[in-house]
Amino acid sequence: MNSMDYVAVCPPLRAAILTAALLPSALLGAGVAAAQELHEVRPAEGPLVLESRGSFFVGGEQVERTAVELGSMGPDDRITIDQMYVEYMVPDGASKVAVVMVHGATLSGKTYDTTPDGRMGWYEYFVRNRHPVYVVDQIGRARSGFDQSTFNNVRAELTPPGEQPNLLRLADGFGSWTNFRIGPEPGKPFPDTQFPIEAADKLSRQSVPDLLGTSREDNPNWKALSDLALQLDGAVLLTHSQSGPYPLESAIIDAQGIRGIVMVEPGTCNAQVHTDEEIAILAQTPILILFGDHLSSPTGLPGPTWQDRFDDCTALKQRIDAAGGDLRLLTTPETGVRGNSHMMMMDRNNLQIADLILAWIDDKVAR
Amino acid sequence: MNSMDYVAVCPPLRAAILTAALLPSALLGAGVAAAQELHEVRPAEGPLVLESRGSFFVGGEQVERTAVELGSMGPDDRITIDQMYVEYMVPDGASKVAVVMVHGATLSGKTYDTTPDGRMGWYEYFVRNRHPVYVVDQIGRARSGFDQSTFNNVRAELTPPGEQPNLLRLADGFGSWTNFRIGPEPGKPFPDTQFPIEAADKLSRQSVPDLLGTSREDNPNWKALSDLALQLDGAVLLTHSQSGPYPLESAIIDAQGIRGIVMVEPGTCNAQVHTDEEIAILAQTPILILFGDHLSSPTGLPGPTWQDRFDDCTALKQRIDAAGGDLRLLTTPETGVRGNSHMMMMDRNNLQIADLILAWIDDKVAR
Repeated sequence: MNSMDYVAVCPPLRAAILTAALLPSALLGAGVAAAQELHEVRPAEGPLVLESRGSFFVGGEQVERTAVELGSMGPDDRITIDQMYVEYMVPDGASKVAVVMVHGATLSGKTYDTTPDGRMGWYEYFVRNRHPVYVVDQIGRARSGFDQSTFNNVRAELTPPGEQPNLLRLADGFGSWTNFRIGPEPGKPFPDTQFPIEAADKLSRQSVPDLLGTSREDNPNWKALSDLALQLDGAVLLTHSQSGPYPLESAIIDAQGIRGIVMVEPGTCNAQVHTDEEIAILAQTPILILFGDHLSSPTGLPGPTWQDRFDDCTALKQRIDAAGGDLRLLTTPETGVRGNSHMMMMDRNNLQIADLILAWIDDKVAR
Repeated sequence: MNSMDYVAVCPPLRAAILTAALLPSALLGAGVAAAQELHEVRPAEGPLVLESRGSFFVGGEQVERTAVELGSMGPDDRITIDQMYVEYMVPDGASKVAVVMVHGATLSGKTYDTTPDGRMGWYEYFVRNRHPVYVVDQIGRARSGFDQSTFNNVRAELTPPGEQPNLLRLADGFGSWTNFRIGPEPGKPFPDTQFPIEAADKLSRQSVPDLLGTSREDNPNWKALSDLALQLDGAVLLTHSQSGPYPLESAIIDAQGIRGIVMVEPGTCNAQVHTDEEIAILAQTPILILFGDHLSSPTGLPGPTWQDRFDDCTALKQRIDAAGGDLRLLTTPETGVRGNSHMMMMDRNNLQIADLILAWIDDKVAR
């Protein structure tokens, strides 16, 4: 399949056709609101009918901690660490494969919910397209919590300050505006940007300090995602940015539950990291890797550009192809759509991009 | 109205009657699962029909931070702090007042969702009872994020370790088991406990380090809740434990949007903190304060017992009564129900307790 096939199946009309049966006058043609305040949130026009919804955890380890490590209110005691929070919605009449959505650095599961300018996010939209959807907070973030012990030990001067983890935060100017490719410099958008720039300040509200760098060895999210896919009896793992490469590691741990992998603008594809045996495992699962526009624009941060990251994914594709796998590497401009940012699940055409992913899942991952 | 009036309106049968119209074979008589794993989560038997759902933020302040404070990936830049994450569901056919649910210390909005043993929480149950419901993560916690600056400055040895906030965590043995009155000592339940003790370990997974102590002056949650109630054009604020007294402060800031206050086992009622003028303001809003059973059991932690806290609320009631207000102070044993813990939104009879609150709202807060 060449990239132009997606032009045929993925214009906005496809959404109108697909959702028409489920949702009479739905979703599309929404305008632009000023910010993500309550009064600017625009609900869908049709009701959402759920078979079930709720939240649970995957994994977690019980560990002993000292009174100081616990914040000194009680004696030495036990807590749980490394659990993963998962919220979910199963639509009434769900007929498609479960999708697990994982956010990127200094963000939470909120990434996939209502956009900064108040439109429907991918979480609800995939549910309205008959997929059960599971949205996680990465371990060490947001509702998954984190292990506070080293911070309290440093505060008590029991361990040196340098042992305390660095808490990364991607800030508004460079971390978000340039690095997320809203525009070439802070405050200046690309003329064709799809990001709702009037709400760019509001993206900042979604930011959560990041306690678990991409560099951590044996990242516990890898196994938690593999376990979750197994518990769901099969799921597509959809990841973004920092979490982009996680499903590769999850599949190498245990690919049984992983029916498909969708990596949206992965921070890396780790093309040269894996052995040929590992690549042979990855070649068993269909993979879609999706990038937006303006890839070579400077990020404003140290490290690789998005073009560098795309090139790394091209190298991974070559290895997967050579092993007989099915890896689709695509940019949105290849489909005829210009101006998508790194945060394409929040872009004005976020549902059009979702349709592209939904079509790939329909094509590659049978129920 | 004396406490026995609630016996008449609040047995489990009331739930069956109330929900029968909305939800044919619903919710009640659920058994006990072993833990809050996915496979143990039990959905309701009838579909949930939502007019809308999603998430947004209240408040937040844009501040400049140094590269070190940001975790040193980019240059000095701007972030947002003190924003409050809010998720919500509005039922199709909503006919009742909005309810805002606020969790307690070292927890998140997860408190009100699926219980540790996999049953429906108050969030969904109130929605099924026709209330739009808004569940927050307290500022400085979970999806609301926190300001990481002081931690990174300490790590860089720019400020002394003692300037770093203490990160409180209530641990499994004393923080949860005895302090939450599951039983008189860790691992030993009260014979009549309503807490799903086979899932007590799983409660620990919900724990999030707490960066904002109850003692903080000018707690930003107070104004955010007042603002949210205004944005909702009227809401009941339902709080728990640490957040118990927040609505009192919110009402003193601006009571316009606050149609009612439900304080579930408040950590304090601050009976002697407010001026007579402030008490006169609080006397304008109906207030329900609800405590569970075994109040005088030792908490296992320093500080007041729950009986001490109840007594403080009795003192507040006396002041509110004297000012002509309407404060209902109730323990669940007064309604004939024994064994409820501090975490009554997770107890086996959590929907029975919810019915008691729903009946009070119906009675005191007109739409």
